Amino acid sequence: MVETMLTTLLLLQATAQAPATAPKAPSEIVAAAPAADWVDIAPDDLLVMQLASGKRVVIQLMPPPFSQPWIANIRTLAKAHWWDGTSINRVQDNYVVQWGDATEKKPLPAGLKTVSESNYIFKPEGRMAEIFASRLNAMAANALASTCMFKDAKATAESCGFRDPFWNERDPYAAHTNFFQGWPLGTDFEKAWPVHCYGMIGVGRNLSPDAGNGAELYTVIGHAPRHLDRNIAVVGRVMEGIEHLSSLPRGTGALGFYEDPKQRVPIASIRLASELPQGERPRVQYLSTQSTSFAAYADARANRKDAFFNIPAGGADICNIPVPVRKKP
Amino acid sequence: MVETMLTTLLLLQATAQAPATAPKAPSEIVAAAPAADWVDIAPDDLLVMQLASGKRVVIQLMPPPFSQPWIANIRTLAKAHWWDGTSINRVQDNYVVQWGDATEKKPLPAGLKTVSESNYIFKPEGRMAEIFASRLNAMAANALASTCMFKDAKATAESCGFRDPFWNERDPYAAHTNFFQGWPLGTDFEKAWPVHCYGMIGVGRNLSPDAGNGAELYTVIGHAPRHLDRNIAVVGRVMEGIEHLSSLPRGTGALGFYEDPKQRVPIASIRLASELPQGERPRVQYLSTQSTSFAAYADARANRKDAFFNIPAGGADICNIPVPVRKKP
Repeated sequence: MVETMLTTLLLLQATAQAPATAPKAPSEIVAAAPAADWVDIAPDDLLVMQLASGKRVVIQLMPPPFSQPWIANIRTLAKAHWWDGTSINRVQDNYVVQWGDATEKKPLPAGLKTVSESNYIFKPEGRMAEIFASRLNAMAANALASTCMFKDAKATAESCGFRDPFWNERDPYAAHTNFFQGWPLGTDFEKAWPVHCYGMIGVGRNLSPDAGNGAELYTVIGHAPRHLDRNIAVVGRVMEGIEHLSSLPRGTGALGFYEDPKQRVPIASIRLASELPQGERPRVQYLSTQSTSFAAYADARANRKDAFFNIPAGGADICNIPVPVRKKP
Repeated sequence: MVETMLTTLLLLQATAQAPATAPKAPSEIVAAAPAADWVDIAPDDLLVMQLASGKRVVIQLMPPPFSQPWIANIRTLAKAHWWDGTSINRVQDNYVVQWGDATEKKPLPAGLKTVSESNYIFKPEGRMAEIFASRLNAMAANALASTCMFKDAKATAESCGFRDPFWNERDPYAAHTNFFQGWPLGTDFEKAWPVHCYGMIGVGRNLSPDAGNGAELYTVIGHAPRHLDRNIAVVGRVMEGIEHLSSLPRGTGALGFYEDPKQRVPIASIRLASELPQGERPRVQYLSTQSTSFAAYADARANRKDAFFNIPAGGADICNIPVPVRKKP
């Protein structure tokens, strides 16, 4: 009797779910996402890099609880207009574009803090650790779960009711991967860390124990160099204009540094968007990784069934599910 | 007594293996590889793309048993000098650079064959199927294994004595991944297929059942789009000059196509290296993926312990272990 009811239920569901049209491409799912699924980014969390060529690159800073000591330094550097007149000095194919003070002699603004390597990884403590482990266990059980586990120390399982949009245990670099507030993460049951996908921004540093101060930054312009995860601070990502960096001529020196100072690409300014006049502030949004639209998008990225595809992959690595970004309509 | 002997043995090994210097970086392992570990590529397996700008791109064609019907067409097209005067028409950021006849009206040379989709995947039969399954089982058991399982139908387990250089079961797209004669593959116990890593070359096509004829080609210039594996033919890879493609201005039309025909990048010629005068032939080599040097390199890529790194990843995806390539000294 139970089996018969179940069979009937399954048949009803199958009928209800039979597609009226062909399966949607990821881009179609994103285009159909309701306005409520798109998240604005506060101007104080955006950096605007103005190249002397007139081209503009928009960067979102990493939200708490990740990498915040470097983010504090980056805000200090931006407010001091420290990057104005610096340059892009390194373009290594299939790896990174890096910028900062090529002379390595420009005085730094007051107030920069020395950051400890321990901040590469977020390890919650006390009540947060319990919430963190329980949420990840819920995800692992493939139950209804939440991606808001880091939201605040007072969050409870009850206050978060979103479905796990993407949970991947077939990752060579982390016990598992998933998304948090629009960001790709590597996780285990005790800690989490941001990962190096295309367009992510990291902090250049010297040998350990130096962890960099945030003045020297790079962005990824090739296959995700995930071996850098937990070894360098990830502090942001390019939201707009990555093509102005990824299409730059490659440097011919060691590690892709430009050999001739004339090859360097001058940076006119880097500003917090909150420092710009209202009309010049970028208005960018990302698709909430807690939304059902994102869950459908991630599923479609991992299982392409739209017309062009014959064999759905049955999975995707976290960097092959780029979080959709758009200009605010 | 056994334990004591074992302990002693382990201590002796530990002493013998204690590094006199710091662990080597992957680049140092490659630099130290003996000449015998480098493999020449026959001029008949190389394509030389000469851009009208004077820049040169060198491509290696995929070896048997993969994608050979398209390779046959590509040889026919090259011998007919069909690509001369065509252009690069599409540059999509973090995805592909694509070239061919933008007019879609240029007559094709005689002798091109229609290729079946079944060739996206290699599925051995008969005796080969037995060898294939037994070799993959041996790899899976992490025993001494061979990567020469496709070499020829007469190969036996005894004739191949190389260590499995890299075996990865934590791949979201395939049951496992490994290397064959210098190429990254996805595999299960019945079949194998080449994968879309940075710099790989594939065949543009229309909707299924069209599988493309090889006249329209693309190369990957971003994070590995592994969802294309088994859905498009992979026919080669860029050995030299990828930076001349990856740094091109991005197209602003749909899918990164250039909107203005003037933006297209003219191709002067594409030739088999065997058609070029001796002095103009590229002399490139790859590091044998059956060599102990490659095994050490792959291990170091997955477990960076050189001075810059704090936390070895403990793994790597197959596209983050690019097969080393060099000009023949």
